[in-house]
Amino acid sequence: MSELSSEFDRDVAVVEVGEGRFQGDVSSRWDIGGNPNGGYVLSIALAALRRTLPQPHVLTVTAHYFRPPDKGPVEVEVERIRSGRAHATGMARLVQDGRERVRVLATFGDLSKAEGPTAVTAVRPSIADPDHCIRRSDVTDLMQTEHEAAKRFDTRLSPDTGWANGRPSGVARTDGWVRFADGREPDVWALPLVADCFPPTVFELIDPTWVPTLELTVHVRAEPAPGWLQGHFQTRALVDGYLEEDGELWDSSGQLVAMSRQLALVLS
Amino acid sequence: MSELSSEFDRDVAVVEVGEGRFQGDVSSRWDIGGNPNGGYVLSIALAALRRTLPQPHVLTVTAHYFRPPDKGPVEVEVERIRSGRAHATGMARLVQDGRERVRVLATFGDLSKAEGPTAVTAVRPSIADPDHCIRRSDVTDLMQTEHEAAKRFDTRLSPDTGWANGRPSGVARTDGWVRFADGREPDVWALPLVADCFPPTVFELIDPTWVPTLELTVHVRAEPAPGWLQGHFQTRALVDGYLEEDGELWDSSGQLVAMSRQLALVLS
Repeated sequence: MSELSSEFDRDVAVVEVGEGRFQGDVSSRWDIGGNPNGGYVLSIALAALRRTLPQPHVLTVTAHYFRPPDKGPVEVEVERIRSGRAHATGMARLVQDGRERVRVLATFGDLSKAEGPTAVTAVRPSIADPDHCIRRSDVTDLMQTEHEAAKRFDTRLSPDTGWANGRPSGVARTDGWVRFADGREPDVWALPLVADCFPPTVFELIDPTWVPTLELTVHVRAEPAPGWLQGHFQTRALVDGYLEEDGELWDSSGQLVAMSRQLALVLS
Repeated sequence: MSELSSEFDRDVAVVEVGEGRFQGDVSSRWDIGGNPNGGYVLSIALAALRRTLPQPHVLTVTAHYFRPPDKGPVEVEVERIRSGRAHATGMARLVQDGRERVRVLATFGDLSKAEGPTAVTAVRPSIADPDHCIRRSDVTDLMQTEHEAAKRFDTRLSPDTGWANGRPSGVARTDGWVRFADGREPDVWALPLVADCFPPTVFELIDPTWVPTLELTVHVRAEPAPGWLQGHFQTRALVDGYLEEDGELWDSSGQLVAMSRQLALVLS
């Protein structure tokens, strides 16, 4: 699977149409309940920023979501804010019908040139192998009917995922494995999407419902090795409908490759 | 201590000088090693956003830092991006001498109108009372000499803070208590600053040094009660000099009031 022919790369591709102006196309292939996945939409913005900033890797990106984009053409307006020796920062707006849908702020750098001390105490959760996990496609939930985005991934949920067994555990934690269904290998550009592609952790607390993201921030910490990505997600404070969801992604070599946090809202 | 006469409120105050344009003044009172604390600088941007967005509370704010502002006048250019029924989002640029120093993106809402399910599994760390903690002012470290910002707070570090006892523990975790030195009570506007006012957790791993923040995101989860704030900070992955620092702030009623995460860099 070459990068160019993958579903992900085709669906986030943008064309430059002017100074700092790009045109993309929102595909319905990444829909959840009729709206595109937030990580996918963010990735369209990153595709435009990648054409604008000189550094080769996104280190930290934040998206604020206003209204879900519709399927179809989308304008991406990019501002190059600063470009230093080691880091560059840019902003992107996603606009449809003259209305801004998403605002993105990102700082890029070069992970291959990073120099400094290393000390990792984060521990990769020990979970069942992918073959002994629950295939997401086997799980029936309220959101499944129109869930196009789930088909883009091969997602395996840890066997002790309560809600997937019909018994929500009361502890909002999700562990599992994921890879693109079409075999595209992970890279730094895929990580923000993958950080948002697991089912919401709050399904362990409440009946599956629509949990829109207000803001998502992803730190890319290393270039992932080929193969499965392991995801670990948890929500420790759901208060009056607002919740954080913290994520970690580990690659097949056992390296922590991304950390994510989003602020989301349970719609009742 | 009224809000208006506190050091914090005076030093973040801005004056509107045009449509979306504010003027502030960077005080040297919040300096660390000659540069203003990142949470303080972010708070100047929030003061301008607060005058621009209709909702009463900041829910999530992200700052990307380019170069530290100098002491003295600072222009704050604010864009109101969208304003909906429940949430509003704005952006702010901090500019000195025509050069942008910091870019801020924030979404506001109204915590008092939040409605939805509540389930909290986060646990407030049990640590010694403030009277049995280490006063930060008693700790001598390499950064102490010019450390004006530390004087603005009454900070108490847990007795088992290794580096403060001259024996870095190898586990990058900091627990303690904090309140403004002048008695100003905490509110949602103080939380982003407080989330950035403890000594870096990596002092447990490396000799105290300059650890500039590339990006800081703070989620405000509740209005804090008066009194001490308890802080819990940890870094689990320091890789080639890049590190995340995750923070939690708990108020005197035991409520989780803020969660923070920053991406920072150890300068060697």
